[in-house]
Amino acid sequence: MSTPFDLFSFAKRIPATPSIGSTTVTKPDHIHLSFGFAAPHLFPIEQLSRAAYEAVAQHGRKALQYSGSGGPRKILEWIQNRSLVHGIKAELNQIMVTYGSTQGIDLAARMLLDPGDHVWVESPSFFSALQAFRTAEAVITSFPIDEDGLRVDLLENALLEAGRNNKPIPKFIYTMPTYHNPGGVTLSNERRRRLAQLAETYNFFIVEDDAYSELNFSGRKFPPLYTLIPERVIYLNTFSKIIGPGLRLGWMIADKRVIEKARLLNLGGSIGVFTQEILAQLLDGFAFQEHVDQLILHYSEQRDVMAEAVQSSFGDHVTFHLPEGGFYIWLQFGKHVNTSDFLRDAAEMGVSFVDGKSFFAKQEGYPYARLCFSYVSEEQIVRGVNILADAYFAYEEQRLFGLTKQQPL
Amino acid sequence: MSTPFDLFSFAKRIPATPSIGSTTVTKPDHIHLSFGFAAPHLFPIEQLSRAAYEAVAQHGRKALQYSGSGGPRKILEWIQNRSLVHGIKAELNQIMVTYGSTQGIDLAARMLLDPGDHVWVESPSFFSALQAFRTAEAVITSFPIDEDGLRVDLLENALLEAGRNNKPIPKFIYTMPTYHNPGGVTLSNERRRRLAQLAETYNFFIVEDDAYSELNFSGRKFPPLYTLIPERVIYLNTFSKIIGPGLRLGWMIADKRVIEKARLLNLGGSIGVFTQEILAQLLDGFAFQEHVDQLILHYSEQRDVMAEAVQSSFGDHVTFHLPEGGFYIWLQFGKHVNTSDFLRDAAEMGVSFVDGKSFFAKQEGYPYARLCFSYVSEEQIVRGVNILADAYFAYEEQRLFGLTKQQPL
Ligand SMILES: Cc1ncc(COP(=O)(O)O)c(C=O)c1O
Ligand SMILES: Cc1ncc(COP(=O)(O)O)c(C=O)c1O
Repeated sequence: MSTPFDLFSFAKRIPATPSIGSTTVTKPDHIHLSFGFAAPHLFPIEQLSRAAYEAVAQHGRKALQYSGSGGPRKILEWIQNRSLVHGIKAELNQIMVTYGSTQGIDLAARMLLDPGDHVWVESPSFFSALQAFRTAEAVITSFPIDEDGLRVDLLENALLEAGRNNKPIPKFIYTMPTYHNPGGVTLSNERRRRLAQLAETYNFFIVEDDAYSELNFSGRKFPPLYTLIPERVIYLNTFSKIIGPGLRLGWMIADKRVIEKARLLNLGGSIGVFTQEILAQLLDGFAFQEHVDQLILHYSEQRDVMAEAVQSSFGDHVTFHLPEGGFYIWLQFGKHVNTSDFLRDAAEMGVSFVDGKSFFAKQEGYPYARLCFSYVSEEQIVRGVNILADAYFAYEEQRLFGLTKQQPL
Repeated sequence: MSTPFDLFSFAKRIPATPSIGSTTVTKPDHIHLSFGFAAPHLFPIEQLSRAAYEAVAQHGRKALQYSGSGGPRKILEWIQNRSLVHGIKAELNQIMVTYGSTQGIDLAARMLLDPGDHVWVESPSFFSALQAFRTAEAVITSFPIDEDGLRVDLLENALLEAGRNNKPIPKFIYTMPTYHNPGGVTLSNERRRRLAQLAETYNFFIVEDDAYSELNFSGRKFPPLYTLIPERVIYLNTFSKIIGPGLRLGWMIADKRVIEKARLLNLGGSIGVFTQEILAQLLDGFAFQEHVDQLILHYSEQRDVMAEAVQSSFGDHVTFHLPEGGFYIWLQFGKHVNTSDFLRDAAEMGVSFVDGKSFFAKQEGYPYARLCFSYVSEEQIVRGVNILADAYFAYEEQRLFGLTKQQPL
């Protein structure tokens, strides 16, 4: 009998492997510094279970139909109002609810990119975004970040050069200007303004991923790129970091013609209205700002604990930028270090992290590690960072002095 | 200032318009024979609101994380067990939960189709599927159905011809073998076997959309194509018709290598685990067979009422196949009738239906109308069909005798 998978192939867009080399650390006492998860004890469980009961009891017949009851509209209005706090003014027909911002990224890619089109990203960038662009068969070019975010000057040089030599301009630039994942950095005001001007001059879109916007530890405010040049920005955000990722609800804000196309790509299918009814019920009367303040208080303490642990465990073997928000600390090691080489050792010793290569378009070895401080406890942070340092120093010793320690398989 | 949408374009895959020319009949007394919706009074609201409360209260912390608690696995097991009732044996790693079967269709298309690839469908076919294939930039070829479903003999001729002349074989055939939407017909056993053999011989996939499988009014059983040739079938089903579409949960069953690719395309993102936890809680101890029996009883009565109303209102101006299951009656008019021409008149008079052209790859005028008997009441069915007949006879009179009645805008 013929085996179908030898005889004909999947579409070219299908990647061969997942984008992230996830460590499957499963023992119960293992410490997950790899998971970019929210702190479960801060989920509003009680309010949510009541909201779930009431939403179904009150609006169940409509909540179970394709288009739902009032929930989807209430969510749009909530997003509209909350966006104003961040300076974003949008009509309801400029807002689309998505299955998390991950779907927003995917829709933006499929809306704008034909195979062979160019997309420019930060280096490092978010692995699921890289995966989405690969799947859209785009050509990905990366630009470094520093402590002020994307090196817009280098981007500008590349645009100038492309203009002069008739080389391709990107269809869009994908950026996480605020509390970058994994870099932890934030784009300066000056660079924001320059980037907006470049989008105008060179005629490209900006896909602005603002997943961590609410988790602002410092109080310093930065204008979303959307506020600077709304017609060129596809703005993405999510309930994952402020309520919980299990809901799989996020949103896109853009020109209404973009939103129309995104809806078409979604096959006209609405996004699960049932969950939206429940979330709408939760948000109705929910003390959201208080909730966010709690998140900020907790996560910023966790960040401090992790930063201290890193300093005391690694000393000057690593450098990092202290993030003003978000979930991550991004360690930079000496340039000959390949963090993928001690990923498995660290896992064996009981701690997971995400190695550098997952965040780069080329997926090559890099001297970086992403540690997430949001999910684990303070005690775990201290212990986890310590174990990680042990794994690193053992690797480093072997690398430098070639000790023939038996590598675990 | 330059306007970005004049200067650069959306990806080629983006369709210009929605696939279905929906009538927006909004007055409260209007009768929606167009909506392919479930009967809301049959939703298990009470059990579901309790399930929602309990699922969140008990598993909320995990239900709100990315990967959830036990819910997603319980759903897989439920699907596995229920599939056995229909003769489908599948391992858990051959089952993937999707955002409704609509996402299943989209994933199948994006997994298998490169631009220019061929896909063969029934004529008529499901409009969202046609939209998905257009969006994948596929070449769509249609084959007629009769009262025994897809004309597999014509398909076979086309394959023979393609083989002889070195013309393209389809990557897959999309079919709704059981209670076809909109045709209402079911593929005979003999044709099922033949189609499975052809898939083997000519080396193509079959995407089997089995959305109405549980709504079997006659008791006659037909083997899903998946049971005949599992390694070549991507089997799709949904909770939309048995629980409610608002949940946006369906499933795909296929070879595990296909499922792996589908997961990659979904950007490794899990499908909303929150809703899955709630559904799992509902299904746990839910008298599902009893529930389905109620649906069958109700929908089959509705079908009978509609069939009678059509016969008495339209007489021999239409023919249709009495469906053994599902939601729809598919009216065929005389061949010079274009149902799109009285769609708006009917809407003005208070009744909506879906005109023929929505179901054809070419989106041209056709003498067909899809009426849905699941959503409306018996009384509405009778009144709605009556009004529709009035609209049709007025149109027909004008068409035949050229009366210059003023068309409403
Ligand atoms: C920058 C960024 N964008 C998007 C996402 C995905 O979020 P969602 O759960 O909304 O898909 C994440 C989550 O890790 C993220 O860090
Ligand atoms: C044949 C068929 N497939 C798929 C669907 C879509 O179902 P879901 O709600 O699961 O996306 C429908 C719904 O009308 C249908 O008729």
